[in-house]
Amino acid sequence: MPEDCIFCKILAGEIPAAKVHETENTLAFEDINPKAPVHVLVIPRKHIPTINDLAREDGALVGEMMLAAREVARLKGVDRSGYRIIFNTNREAGQEVFHIHLHVLGGHPLGPMG
Amino acid sequence: MPEDCIFCKILAGEIPAAKVHETENTLAFEDINPKAPVHVLVIPRKHIPTINDLAREDGALVGEMMLAAREVARLKGVDRSGYRIIFNTNREAGQEVFHIHLHVLGGHPLGPMG
Repeated sequence: MPEDCIFCKILAGEIPAAKVHETENTLAFEDINPKAPVHVLVIPRKHIPTINDLAREDGALVGEMMLAAREVARLKGVDRSGYRIIFNTNREAGQEVFHIHLHVLGGHPLGPMG
Repeated sequence: MPEDCIFCKILAGEIPAAKVHETENTLAFEDINPKAPVHVLVIPRKHIPTINDLAREDGALVGEMMLAAREVARLKGVDRSGYRIIFNTNREAGQEVFHIHLHVLGGHPLGPMG
């Protein structure tokens, strides 16, 4: 665990977070600066800095993150109305924390993608 | 294969597409209405209407889509500058084709997420 990783600190219980869902290998919690009425982050317990750093054997882990995101959408009541799942990598996408995470956004009509 | 699914028709070679990358279970091709300098779609060969319809055993398939997206970013030269991967589900996210797909966007600073 990198000492300066805020998501590793959340996983270790050193920084509080509003948990939404968890699985063996993932944790979902409320984004503290929400960009939509529903804005939840899903992270793996394993520290991986960016999507570029995924090993081939991490495919199943990312799949587990996606299944967790689908469950978050259901728990938040936006699975039928609609939701967006986003992974941002590096500067031009605005990645802020270098521990991979996906955003689940919903609760209003979502804007342009790019 | 649903008869009216445009992505199944692309997979069957009945509608042309500018292919970018393919794997055993996925195909990547240029979006015909790009929202950023780089805008590529990655689809599974299996027809699944929405992320809500994923079976638990589809986790590995979605992981393969993500690894394909990472490879698309590398092929397009945006892996270092940055890229966004998006899955849209249902109306409020603007899902237009009901065969799951992810968008790989990059090539300029990407806007707000939600």
